[in-house]
Amino acid sequence: MPRLVDHEQRRAEVAAVARSVIVRSGLEALTVREVAKAAGYSTAIVSHYFADKRQFLLYIYRWTAMRAEARVRARFDAAPHDLLASIESLLPIEEERRQDWLVWFAFWGWAASDPEFAREQRSQTRMARDMVASLIAAAIRDGTLIAETDHADLALRLITLVDGIAIQAIFDPDDWSGDRQRAAIRRELAPYESGPAR
Amino acid sequence: MPRLVDHEQRRAEVAAVARSVIVRSGLEALTVREVAKAAGYSTAIVSHYFADKRQFLLYIYRWTAMRAEARVRARFDAAPHDLLASIESLLPIEEERRQDWLVWFAFWGWAASDPEFAREQRSQTRMARDMVASLIAAAIRDGTLIAETDHADLALRLITLVDGIAIQAIFDPDDWSGDRQRAAIRRELAPYESGPAR
Repeated sequence: MPRLVDHEQRRAEVAAVARSVIVRSGLEALTVREVAKAAGYSTAIVSHYFADKRQFLLYIYRWTAMRAEARVRARFDAAPHDLLASIESLLPIEEERRQDWLVWFAFWGWAASDPEFAREQRSQTRMARDMVASLIAAAIRDGTLIAETDHADLALRLITLVDGIAIQAIFDPDDWSGDRQRAAIRRELAPYESGPAR
Repeated sequence: MPRLVDHEQRRAEVAAVARSVIVRSGLEALTVREVAKAAGYSTAIVSHYFADKRQFLLYIYRWTAMRAEARVRARFDAAPHDLLASIESLLPIEEERRQDWLVWFAFWGWAASDPEFAREQRSQTRMARDMVASLIAAAIRDGTLIAETDHADLALRLITLVDGIAIQAIFDPDDWSGDRQRAAIRRELAPYESGPAR
């Protein structure tokens, strides 16, 4: 048995448990004690990694955002001609992505009155938009989208649409099937697609 | 001095103070004790009206939603040919409406793990969409929008757009000026406007 624990790994483990507490029971239930209980650690160990709810939330938020970005990029690399599939991987169509949105909602509620979190949210949204703009630029170079596409403007509209869909779909999944979510994105992309003749 | 206090009025007063606590300090700070302090009442009086944070939040949410709907309807009645102005009155362009969105963010964060709140959110969103659809239908009858407008579909897209804009604008008001917010709505409405020749 190694004498030293891998601190980064344990921190990530504790954060994963904290994320599941948020997803299951909400931010209100997120306490060092609750996470310790769910993780099977002492409260002393948990509070060694995260002093409070705020630190839990910031770490989980960043981890969730990073993983979502990696997912979109991986989808794009696997299918560069299918921009819809990349954007779709942000939507709450299956359970893991639904959980991402629950984390984001919890973060927004907090960020509304916390300037540091608000700054974080602002910069994450701008980064997401830049990432989508870079995929659009690649799709233009590639001939999948027409050359006239304004990549910054389309990226902004796609992010706005994804946010607007997700908020409704989380609370009303019957009304917002995966097909309906996809159709809304497809409609936004359609005017820029170069068509089967490319 | 009247012997009986007007309970509904006092309840509304206490809720208004609770709303200002959420807006200023976040849901985390919302406690019976904090509201009592801010309102200048005893905790016994405050907890007579609201047992806990959950009751505060539900009441404030409904009050905020009701007032927002009244604002949209009043704007439409005052200027039935200017649908943009009605929709715009939902956007976080000035302080009071910005505060409405802070209340909604707080509610979403909670609703994510509370089935009763989730149901409330779902039904409020559907009502908002029906209200917008009814304004669109009136604008079609009136000749402001073309007869071919699918009012349910356009209402859905406008609500989605308003949600998506608001989330970004709250945290990034520099990037999302009132003009930019309005322009995004105008763009969505433009294909359906019957033009100056009507």
